[in-house]
Amino acid sequence: MAQMYFYYSAMNAGKSTTLLQSSFNYQERGMNPAIFTAAIDDRYGVGKVSSRIGLHAEAHLFNKETNVFDAIKELHEAEKLHCVLIDECQFLTKEQVYQLTEVVDKLNIPALCYGLRTDFLGELFEGSKYLLSWADKLVELKTICHCGRKANMVIRTDEHGVAIADGDQVAIGGNELYVSVCRRHYKEALGK
Amino acid sequence: MAQMYFYYSAMNAGKSTTLLQSSFNYQERGMNPAIFTAAIDDRYGVGKVSSRIGLHAEAHLFNKETNVFDAIKELHEAEKLHCVLIDECQFLTKEQVYQLTEVVDKLNIPALCYGLRTDFLGELFEGSKYLLSWADKLVELKTICHCGRKANMVIRTDEHGVAIADGDQVAIGGNELYVSVCRRHYKEALGK
Amino acid sequence: MAQMYFYYSAMNAGKSTTLLQSSFNYQERGMNPAIFTAAIDDRYGVGKVSSRIGLHAEAHLFNKETNVFDAIKELHEAEKLHCVLIDECQFLTKEQVYQLTEVVDKLNIPALCYGLRTDFLGELFEGSKYLLSWADKLVELKTICHCGRKANMVIRTDEHGVAIADGDQVAIGGNELYVSVCRRHYKEALGK
Amino acid sequence: MAQMYFYYSAMNAGKSTTLLQSSFNYQERGMNPAIFTAAIDDRYGVGKVSSRIGLHAEAHLFNKETNVFDAIKELHEAEKLHCVLIDECQFLTKEQVYQLTEVVDKLNIPALCYGLRTDFLGELFEGSKYLLSWADKLVELKTICHCGRKANMVIRTDEHGVAIADGDQVAIGGNELYVSVCRRHYKEALGK
Repeated sequence: MAQMYFYYSAMNAGKSTTLLQSSFNYQERGMNPAIFTAAIDDRYGVGKVSSRIGLHAEAHLFNKETNVFDAIKELHEAEKLHCVLIDECQFLTKEQVYQLTEVVDKLNIPALCYGLRTDFLGELFEGSKYLLSWADKLVELKTICHCGRKANMVIRTDEHGVAIADGDQVAIGGNELYVSVCRRHYKEALGK
Repeated sequence: MAQMYFYYSAMNAGKSTTLLQSSFNYQERGMNPAIFTAAIDDRYGVGKVSSRIGLHAEAHLFNKETNVFDAIKELHEAEKLHCVLIDECQFLTKEQVYQLTEVVDKLNIPALCYGLRTDFLGELFEGSKYLLSWADKLVELKTICHCGRKANMVIRTDEHGVAIADGDQVAIGGNELYVSVCRRHYKEALGK
Repeated sequence: MAQMYFYYSAMNAGKSTTLLQSSFNYQERGMNPAIFTAAIDDRYGVGKVSSRIGLHAEAHLFNKETNVFDAIKELHEAEKLHCVLIDECQFLTKEQVYQLTEVVDKLNIPALCYGLRTDFLGELFEGSKYLLSWADKLVELKTICHCGRKANMVIRTDEHGVAIADGDQVAIGGNELYVSVCRRHYKEALGK
Repeated sequence: MAQMYFYYSAMNAGKSTTLLQSSFNYQERGMNPAIFTAAIDDRYGVGKVSSRIGLHAEAHLFNKETNVFDAIKELHEAEKLHCVLIDECQFLTKEQVYQLTEVVDKLNIPALCYGLRTDFLGELFEGSKYLLSWADKLVELKTICHCGRKANMVIRTDEHGVAIADGDQVAIGGNELYVSVCRRHYKEALGK
């Protein structure tokens, strides 16, 4: 029975590396994984999953209008898929997370989703909210705060490194925009 | 460093039993745990945590207005607390979940929260939403669907056992109102 | 696909309570679980699993000569089993753990095993060794050291509470014989 | 409080990639991790941790005589260590695993150990045995069997791909020597 996994973490934990390693494991055994990532994330070029550690692979793109069930079904009918891997899954919509449960339940294809848990205001992204609600397995990928404790929150900083407490949920950026911190230092940075 | 745990499950998985066992473990070592439960849940009498398997213990009550940080701090100052255990934590508000992070971060008291993940419409309760967002550890307590697979969703049924797809989020009830099922049988029961 | 779980912990973590709750969950859905425990453990009467919190249930017994595959197969043929629950699984032999993998792999019956990880000398029991080797899922049931940290080791004490560093691996006893402690206090108690 | 983690898996699951990503996470925050690997493993050159996916880093070497506590303490005194990462940890001796618990308990440095669980005969390696006994956290890194299920066992094959049921525990090799499989196909391959 296929299952849906949500691998969640703060930023810079190595989600994309873990995704690419899983994909490698499937291919190494002659299997056919399909990789998707958010069209919104053009940090490293469109249609690519890249990890800061130096790995990358081609990826299908999804945006808010994509019907991921249909897209995956089409790929599966062209060539049997053994697994789908979704990077930046926090950018999925509620409907797309539901479509992914159908990929798992109806097409019996495992879905491994990798993404952030909360935004810089500590609120769930829509995709994360419904993955946390419906996924079979919730697995935390760990990274560390500057204090050495586990980091599970994300601060958005301005160009002076000062934490920002308002603004749009999404402003794609690498290290210079976001910092992963523990809950204590998150509160401290936002003066809570 | 104290941590916040969210022990989540569908209904009838033994959350209260697990809570009572943890409390027992602390007391057995001469430590002082405090138990809280939702005032809304009067199935087994007010101010009590009871498990269907036959265990029960006195519990402090919280409702939407309770400041759980103040309530716990007061108890802690009267007699050092080694842990707080929250049953029916899905009924916490966003603000109360935040107050609990302060109990953990500022008073360094571990908080073990036990509750449902999603309601009969597959939506997160407010308490579950913010525990899934901010807790240090997410631990699933397993129970089974009638088909033998893991149950991670909840159906609300009418007196004829037919699944209901509308109504208030909360209608406190035991086996006769709610059934825990796997995702596939959840969809089937709601004709999805 | 059935799986083999090893729920391990130090002493007094509530393993038997957790086992009895799982059994209750299966029965509540009209399913048929079978409970086994070690004949060697006569603390609460033979053929019974009891938890210090006050719960108990009848149990089939196994000793070193029992062929658990045959015993389970016989029960299964008499009335379909949905799950087997093994208490005190540290007392299983290597061969019996292998037989349990056959119950899972050949009879497709889930096996939930509950037991200690290491003895008072920090060495694995034979049953624990092969469950740690072959089980599909390793799940820790937590309990606490007198210092508040997680307890993952066990000290055997004499009647004066002084830790003992030699003697037979097995001397069945309750609180008065054994104390669960964290690794640091384990080393301290044994003067390491 | 530092903890000891044992990241275990069958072969070709990406243990080295995960280790290198953890190391990268620490360095990215200006911290100083130390990497160790077994001198016995010269597949990719001595003193190097390499992952099949194309990543590598310098590593300190340990062999059966190395006192890892002294080696780490020396590094720590030269420049504060924030974490030690041990690859091929199955090749540690019992004494070396104990020394690592002292690194965690006495020097308060987290130890992340990555390695195999069982050998081609289904028996624990010495290092794995004592990590499974004493580690604070046991985390499984997943890979897949040719049948699509999770692989948790390892077959050693001859040049014709036929499973071998005897021979030394250690014969360092890549894909051509070892294949990770699920328990069912492990038994099948060895004619059990």
